[in-house]
Amino acid sequence: MKNTFGQSLCVTLFGESHGASVGAVIDGLAPGIPVSEAEIERKLSRRRPSSELDTARCEEDRFQIVSGVFDGHTTGTPLSIIIPNEDTRSKDYTYGSARPSHADYAAYCKYHGNEDYRGGGHFSGRVTAALVAVGGILLPALEALGITVGTHILACGNAQDRPFSDVRADIAALSRTDFPTLDAESGEKIKSEILAAREACDSVGGITQTAICGLDAGIGEPWFDSVESMLSHAIFSIGGVKGIEFGMGFGFAAAHGSESNDAFRMHDGRVVTETNFNGGINGGITNGMPVVFQCAVKPTPSISQAQKSVDFRSMENIDLTIKGRHDPAIIRRICPVLDSISAIVVWDLLAQRFGTDFPMKGEK
Amino acid sequence: MKNTFGQSLCVTLFGESHGASVGAVIDGLAPGIPVSEAEIERKLSRRRPSSELDTARCEEDRFQIVSGVFDGHTTGTPLSIIIPNEDTRSKDYTYGSARPSHADYAAYCKYHGNEDYRGGGHFSGRVTAALVAVGGILLPALEALGITVGTHILACGNAQDRPFSDVRADIAALSRTDFPTLDAESGEKIKSEILAAREACDSVGGITQTAICGLDAGIGEPWFDSVESMLSHAIFSIGGVKGIEFGMGFGFAAAHGSESNDAFRMHDGRVVTETNFNGGINGGITNGMPVVFQCAVKPTPSISQAQKSVDFRSMENIDLTIKGRHDPAIIRRICPVLDSISAIVVWDLLAQRFGTDFPMKGEK
Amino acid sequence: MKNTFGQSLCVTLFGESHGASVGAVIDGLAPGIPVSEAEIERKLSRRRPSSELDTARCEEDRFQIVSGVFDGHTTGTPLSIIIPNEDTRSKDYTYGSARPSHADYAAYCKYHGNEDYRGGGHFSGRVTAALVAVGGILLPALEALGITVGTHILACGNAQDRPFSDVRADIAALSRTDFPTLDAESGEKIKSEILAAREACDSVGGITQTAICGLDAGIGEPWFDSVESMLSHAIFSIGGVKGIEFGMGFGFAAAHGSESNDAFRMHDGRVVTETNFNGGINGGITNGMPVVFQCAVKPTPSISQAQKSVDFRSMENIDLTIKGRHDPAIIRRICPVLDSISAIVVWDLLAQRFGTDFPMKGEK
Amino acid sequence: MKNTFGQSLCVTLFGESHGASVGAVIDGLAPGIPVSEAEIERKLSRRRPSSELDTARCEEDRFQIVSGVFDGHTTGTPLSIIIPNEDTRSKDYTYGSARPSHADYAAYCKYHGNEDYRGGGHFSGRVTAALVAVGGILLPALEALGITVGTHILACGNAQDRPFSDVRADIAALSRTDFPTLDAESGEKIKSEILAAREACDSVGGITQTAICGLDAGIGEPWFDSVESMLSHAIFSIGGVKGIEFGMGFGFAAAHGSESNDAFRMHDGRVVTETNFNGGINGGITNGMPVVFQCAVKPTPSISQAQKSVDFRSMENIDLTIKGRHDPAIIRRICPVLDSISAIVVWDLLAQRFGTDFPMKGEK
Repeated sequence: MKNTFGQSLCVTLFGESHGASVGAVIDGLAPGIPVSEAEIERKLSRRRPSSELDTARCEEDRFQIVSGVFDGHTTGTPLSIIIPNEDTRSKDYTYGSARPSHADYAAYCKYHGNEDYRGGGHFSGRVTAALVAVGGILLPALEALGITVGTHILACGNAQDRPFSDVRADIAALSRTDFPTLDAESGEKIKSEILAAREACDSVGGITQTAICGLDAGIGEPWFDSVESMLSHAIFSIGGVKGIEFGMGFGFAAAHGSESNDAFRMHDGRVVTETNFNGGINGGITNGMPVVFQCAVKPTPSISQAQKSVDFRSMENIDLTIKGRHDPAIIRRICPVLDSISAIVVWDLLAQRFGTDFPMKGEK
Repeated sequence: MKNTFGQSLCVTLFGESHGASVGAVIDGLAPGIPVSEAEIERKLSRRRPSSELDTARCEEDRFQIVSGVFDGHTTGTPLSIIIPNEDTRSKDYTYGSARPSHADYAAYCKYHGNEDYRGGGHFSGRVTAALVAVGGILLPALEALGITVGTHILACGNAQDRPFSDVRADIAALSRTDFPTLDAESGEKIKSEILAAREACDSVGGITQTAICGLDAGIGEPWFDSVESMLSHAIFSIGGVKGIEFGMGFGFAAAHGSESNDAFRMHDGRVVTETNFNGGINGGITNGMPVVFQCAVKPTPSISQAQKSVDFRSMENIDLTIKGRHDPAIIRRICPVLDSISAIVVWDLLAQRFGTDFPMKGEK
Repeated sequence: MKNTFGQSLCVTLFGESHGASVGAVIDGLAPGIPVSEAEIERKLSRRRPSSELDTARCEEDRFQIVSGVFDGHTTGTPLSIIIPNEDTRSKDYTYGSARPSHADYAAYCKYHGNEDYRGGGHFSGRVTAALVAVGGILLPALEALGITVGTHILACGNAQDRPFSDVRADIAALSRTDFPTLDAESGEKIKSEILAAREACDSVGGITQTAICGLDAGIGEPWFDSVESMLSHAIFSIGGVKGIEFGMGFGFAAAHGSESNDAFRMHDGRVVTETNFNGGINGGITNGMPVVFQCAVKPTPSISQAQKSVDFRSMENIDLTIKGRHDPAIIRRICPVLDSISAIVVWDLLAQRFGTDFPMKGEK
Repeated sequence: MKNTFGQSLCVTLFGESHGASVGAVIDGLAPGIPVSEAEIERKLSRRRPSSELDTARCEEDRFQIVSGVFDGHTTGTPLSIIIPNEDTRSKDYTYGSARPSHADYAAYCKYHGNEDYRGGGHFSGRVTAALVAVGGILLPALEALGITVGTHILACGNAQDRPFSDVRADIAALSRTDFPTLDAESGEKIKSEILAAREACDSVGGITQTAICGLDAGIGEPWFDSVESMLSHAIFSIGGVKGIEFGMGFGFAAAHGSESNDAFRMHDGRVVTETNFNGGINGGITNGMPVVFQCAVKPTPSISQAQKSVDFRSMENIDLTIKGRHDPAIIRRICPVLDSISAIVVWDLLAQRFGTDFPMKGEK
């Protein structure tokens, strides 16, 4: 399916970093869902570079909804949204030098030299702006159903944030912060890690933690479309993500069943688990607890230091110093992207289960 | 797509732990591929319980190829394979008790009480026998193309194996071992961890490491079907897998770009990277280096100790002691399953790129 | 998707005419649907050769449900059904002679000589037995919702049956007939056409008419999954079908809008159309009137007369006289197949719209 | 998949008649294919209203390629194309009146009153402009491979054109005509039928015939993705198409096998058939002969006469006289749409078979 994700809700991405526009088509969205341009702009603003922690390339993201919205609501037919690229400096990019840990060489092998190489082309993080715009439509609609999503920076370099505890409250708090950490002091430490990397002409990686609250038990499929399968499928689209774990994740390796099983208990007439080591998912299906997962994000491959590389046209070794404007870390800007991708996956799973009119019914 | 995975190569799984059979339909397999029942049996034998490290339920896996093979070769039409269930003890299972960290309760919420609960039903690891049978067809055919796949136990409890180093040689060595570790002494330590868990009426988790050698650069898609996306999608079908990371994975979090970028160099006229922190994948596309990933496997949820739980029909708290025959760890038996899933994903990616006649052409 | 059809309900077909078995996997069926082996047998019996009007090859269709049914109801996990082949005479078939208007040569070009050629292999009408078995599960469940499906022979050679008029009553009457015509006298004339063809060592074509009653308005998609698209897609799988038309179909060509538009009117508080020239579909979406369509079925290509052909291995002209046992017309036996395919398509459309629990909810 | 068609080549349509734009995303197109804006414009001009035979609404179709083309060639990443709507008169449309044989009422039932009703919204033939633009890219690239596609008007009202005979030459001749008939005199008769309908405030239907030359034998799938299945699936997206037949089609009904089987013969070292009653397809697979099919097109439902209808909001009978500018027949303007859809289907089938680099390889 290439650049389309989802079965009942299908999102198609298009665009290149330095092309005319990036954009998305959302198909399968029920009719009658309110679409607020202000909400879309609010989500886009959370992804936008905002300080010395981020790249100097700044896009205004003047998006245009081309189809699928009528009278402020979705029509039920494909919603197409376009975000023109504005602040591009294509001359910073030359063709043939394989930037280490970037997709340049892999793209050359795949596209035989026809790829738009400027700014990473279709591989660019710029394309995630379109994903975030999609989230600007889906996330408020999910919230109206009591399903909330939030992502914070759990780790960056040697700094850590505390993990989610009171998940719903933590998500609400995150939506009010400028910098996505649960603990303000941790946020300052993480900023210092990023600034230190920038000053060293370097970059730094990190870990995000995402939680989804309010999903009923019974969502997902055993083979092959488990909730973990669908979330990881969509999230590994982001080039910088190199790992994902649910609940206790890699911590299970050294654990015993007796200490890592989640005991079921009745609570207020509902089935809950005393712990949530499984991140809300058993056998691929939601169990009614919050879905919680962590993503490993690698350091931005673009650094200002000289690096060893090759020119894949001349097939010769070269020394490469990357020009252009880059983020010393993408860990902050990736948080709204993860919220949006999570919203797409959750919506798709719910629309499969509850039908294409999900979540609305009847006339407006 | 539920129980079907893949686009050019589609694998559909069916069956329950205590039903008549488990099985698979493989569709999209090119005509003319040799099918060896001995190879299928060899792969199945690597998954089969074999010692006190494993469950006492022992299946002979007398598989039958029902369609799609003629004269020892694939016909190009759907290949259906069935493996009857034989050694079942359904009376060990009663309905309504939610075994902690198992899918029982989630399945009840999804299937409204119609699910075949015996032995985990369709959620059972028993279904992976069908996956391994599929691998028994695909893996030899990939090997004939120079594409080899191997999985070893990287960690279990507090014991560790060494990571892959000379990947192709390591994979070859693994195919000759009885117990899937690269270092024999590590293997003994891991066995001890498993036996200790068994003796404590407990279970233990672990980490696997898988490598795929011989993939050309340029395979995969940027959005949304990256190589990481497709592998993780398929692998998270296995209920026991709770994390996956590629290359350095979660190790990237504390790293800087200057120390974790993979420098490109020319070597024998080919582009290679000096290190493989990215696990052979840049921007979702293969770069020609071995694809390497680790999976976190949780301890078997079935332990012989009493656990707190609920009866989800009466909605009451209960104390539950699980009967039945269980693995103290699935980390060994999951290795051939991961090889097979990897083969399915790789084949699907190659068949999309090279067409439905991949890898054979012409008359037999 | 090759041998799989459907999105929310997915049916995968496998098997060859002279292989071990034909069969189907039905995935996406809601949990809790009653499965009656007697109903399946009843549908299979309507497709089974029964007289001198049909082939002498007679299969008992001793089907086996391999998975997905527990306690007489669907579990919600893949339902796999297998029908062993019994009455085969493979020696009637030799390889290389391209039977005119059969798939032999096309299959050779596609499968490069690896195809199972015996009895048409995977192209055989034998595979439709599996489709009819699927219908044996879906059709009674649809009927319980008030959705009924029926197919009759509208024409065969120079004989005609009357078209549907009181659709629901006509469908009910069809379920009670042995020979699928609305008018008994027409049935006798059609039988005569078939017997005449048989006596002339020839075969004869025909037209079927199918109606689906009880579908709500608003089902289907404008692009690309119109109701006409989905029905035609599934039905053109049958090699013998060479045309399909909805409502007035090809009759529209010489008509004017003023005489072929369906006027809307209120009737008993519901919106209906005075005529049904559009066959219940406007713009690809159901309008609440019965869905009605006709299929053109070509004469069975297998005739006992000598025919001009080629041997595609030696690439030489040959004269070919086909051996084996064949139907002089498939127009009768195709009727239950069309009912079953219609049921699959309708179910899939409804399950997309109403979700994967369609049509049942709650515990059994 | 709703508004997306295809597996290896995926085309997604969006837009409404009176919205900002209509457009398409083409995904899965190989890198390195030349894209000529002049060719796209040339195809669009063939669909554009051009005389009193057509609607008075005239769009300039100032398309913009938003992504996926770099340096005049496809990049291999999604190609997005947008065509703004310009000449709209939304005030001609009021909501609630169900225009007979239009989708208004069905759309209301599906979208619960949220649909953009102006000019038919997403159901409008306006959306086919985007399809034709896609054809403007695919058709020249297929032609470069020797695969040509052409459609003519076979019948309209009581006038007929001759059927294809020397197919390749006929297709070439069609590309040079202004009015798509094989015989010029037939063209004049058909124009008279259309003008007569217009003068009578009426509309008229017709039959198109399409041929595809140059397809190798062996393309397509037996179940469920026959060539007939894929073509009919895509073509029935067009609301005005109500029937499709391949080769002899409905003519098979009264035929015998002895007179309608296509005899195979060797010709110049190739296998051919003496006749082409099967329209180039056996058992769903191409046999190397031209693929030929006819489509039944209903009269434009919009006529200027008063019609009986309902207001579906007030649920009352009304008399309706349709305002707006309309085609008295769409039979001419549908021809380039059928060429384009055929190109999409053929490309998708070939890309599945030959891989995603089809048809180009290597660097530009």
